[in-house]
Amino acid sequence: MKRIYLDHSATTPVDSRVLEAMKPFFSKAYGNASSLHKFGQEAKRAMEESREKIANAINAKINEIIFTSGGTESDNLAIKGICLANKSKEKGKNHIITSKIEHHAVLHTCQWMEKQGFEVTYLPVDKYGLVNPADVEDAIKKNTCLVSIMLASNEIGTIEPVEKIGKICRENEVYFHTDAVQAFGKIPIDVNKMNIDLLSASAHKVYGPKGVGALFVREGVDIQPIIHGGGHENDIRSGTENVSGIVGFGAASEIAKKEMKREGEREIKLRDKLIKEVLKIENSHLNGHPTKRLPNNANFWFAFVEGESLILYLDVKGIAGSTGSACSSKSLEPSHVLLAIGLKYEEAHGSLRLTLGKQNTKEDIDYVLKILPDVVERLREISPYKGKWKQ
Amino acid sequence: MKRIYLDHSATTPVDSRVLEAMKPFFSKAYGNASSLHKFGQEAKRAMEESREKIANAINAKINEIIFTSGGTESDNLAIKGICLANKSKEKGKNHIITSKIEHHAVLHTCQWMEKQGFEVTYLPVDKYGLVNPADVEDAIKKNTCLVSIMLASNEIGTIEPVEKIGKICRENEVYFHTDAVQAFGKIPIDVNKMNIDLLSASAHKVYGPKGVGALFVREGVDIQPIIHGGGHENDIRSGTENVSGIVGFGAASEIAKKEMKREGEREIKLRDKLIKEVLKIENSHLNGHPTKRLPNNANFWFAFVEGESLILYLDVKGIAGSTGSACSSKSLEPSHVLLAIGLKYEEAHGSLRLTLGKQNTKEDIDYVLKILPDVVERLREISPYKGKWKQ
Repeated sequence: MKRIYLDHSATTPVDSRVLEAMKPFFSKAYGNASSLHKFGQEAKRAMEESREKIANAINAKINEIIFTSGGTESDNLAIKGICLANKSKEKGKNHIITSKIEHHAVLHTCQWMEKQGFEVTYLPVDKYGLVNPADVEDAIKKNTCLVSIMLASNEIGTIEPVEKIGKICRENEVYFHTDAVQAFGKIPIDVNKMNIDLLSASAHKVYGPKGVGALFVREGVDIQPIIHGGGHENDIRSGTENVSGIVGFGAASEIAKKEMKREGEREIKLRDKLIKEVLKIENSHLNGHPTKRLPNNANFWFAFVEGESLILYLDVKGIAGSTGSACSSKSLEPSHVLLAIGLKYEEAHGSLRLTLGKQNTKEDIDYVLKILPDVVERLREISPYKGKWKQ
Repeated sequence: MKRIYLDHSATTPVDSRVLEAMKPFFSKAYGNASSLHKFGQEAKRAMEESREKIANAINAKINEIIFTSGGTESDNLAIKGICLANKSKEKGKNHIITSKIEHHAVLHTCQWMEKQGFEVTYLPVDKYGLVNPADVEDAIKKNTCLVSIMLASNEIGTIEPVEKIGKICRENEVYFHTDAVQAFGKIPIDVNKMNIDLLSASAHKVYGPKGVGALFVREGVDIQPIIHGGGHENDIRSGTENVSGIVGFGAASEIAKKEMKREGEREIKLRDKLIKEVLKIENSHLNGHPTKRLPNNANFWFAFVEGESLILYLDVKGIAGSTGSACSSKSLEPSHVLLAIGLKYEEAHGSLRLTLGKQNTKEDIDYVLKILPDVVERLREISPYKGKWKQ
């Protein structure tokens, strides 16, 4: 059976060119980048070339890129690192501003900071999932040390007005972090134009390997490490560097930058067709903004349908989708993002996220459009709400 | 020119069998292990098989293995995670016992805990680098929450009396963590026999990939995460799992367990020859215990020789060695381990660590023995102590 992968926001296959770039660094150029000898120096050189590629992708300086184990660690390092630096200097800055629709890597970190005595403001969003920059400005207080607003939503794909938020933060001398795990490599990012001080990115969302990420830390930003040890990564992140992973991330960034425009336009075309046709299913709705959204993201809710059953049925038919964040798949709670944009508990339970990628074709979308309406109908037939959904 | 790698304690090449095991998980079975669909489930299955292999290697249960990004993160998670859990429960347990020769991932983490209000006892070691179990017992107080003593030294190779220390900890109801990053896969480990509650391991030290490690956390041990997010790894370590890396670690563990005895004996033979012959160089000394040491470790100090120059000279001759920990290669400070075993500042600066691996042959050792005496002599010729070293 044909298997169609439409869960590229959960993870992506490693691009064959990326894998080729990585291969020498497993068993041939296998040195520890901290070693003084040739094996070490060739590893270090490859790592620094990758750092440059990632810096180039977001208009940063080379020394502003810190490698981590992934997006979650980057988010943790950004938030805890800034808070710890402020706390230790006893500046009395102990207030964070974030939004209600952030990834759990940001939200749970903020909740942890609350337990450490920090105050957190969780800003609401509108029905499309947009943060209002004026709300950020209103929330800034004398003791605010950090604003953390995602560049684009991992669930509903909405692209936030980060440039405006960044400007407000700069004017108010507050650090601005953005979780760009989903946006990196998909839409243009310029950390200077957007006034971003810290930015999280992950390799495996852009056809790179799992287990490697980066944090952009603007020069001069005072941050403390959350993992202590040998002092790697400019004393901000200790641990032997994952050289092959870093090389893969660099290659993936370079390819993403080069192909972004063409691939983005291709995906938007396919996605818009998908959205248009799916919305013909009775009582179906689009989640997220109609235009201010990531090129590859489609997110729906279907009344009287249980999202997890939908995923499992589609999987039987060879289609891999998700209800929302992969990280939350174990949880029975409805998506905090869908609740934040105004869906009711039972509505949020009927969500389907389909996220496109480079290998998806028009035929894939046609197949989904052939299968999905029947599956939705069948699930409604067996639903306790049977018959009611037509009302 | 022949290149001889003798820095296997810094890192190892990925075993070709390990790389083969990893390959499918880059671009074919690329699912996110948290996803509900088939792509996700095949990733999850592979990950759980690896977890079992790592558990088997140390006689742990499958659910006691937590995957991390490497040894440094494992050490940080063990120490901070236990301390945070004790702090948050307000048990008043705020005392850690460790040794002066731990890896910086442990020492710098302990120093950070001191800044957070914890008290740390840094135990001395004898001239071989051995911790005295009686010292551990004497240091335990009512408020001690954790003892962290490495299984074997990354620098001098000395194997610590961990079983005795574990027994003392158990009797005194204090958690016992051991940094087994260098010992894992090289000498037999049984977490039950050794009374270990937490154990750190890293893949890239045993012919697995960089960027993946594990922490054994005994069932029932109360630990808090240091990286928050989607609740992966039983809520102890969030972040999309590095599936290919984890699969590689599993394969590497399985191979290491199977080949440990034979390969260990082979390396000991080569290493003992190396030690015996090198000690014929005038004013040369072995660091670490003569017999209680890792099979692959040789560590010397040469009077009137500057270690870094020695590394660079040997590198020119095609031999890759180190002065000590790769992590500390950027530092001008002499090794804290060599100072702790009683070397003077200038003596500690003259160290050379040669660590053998699977691909090393008798010919490699012969080549080193041919080259090294001349290099040492040459460096002494240009040393400001010229002539004095014979006294």
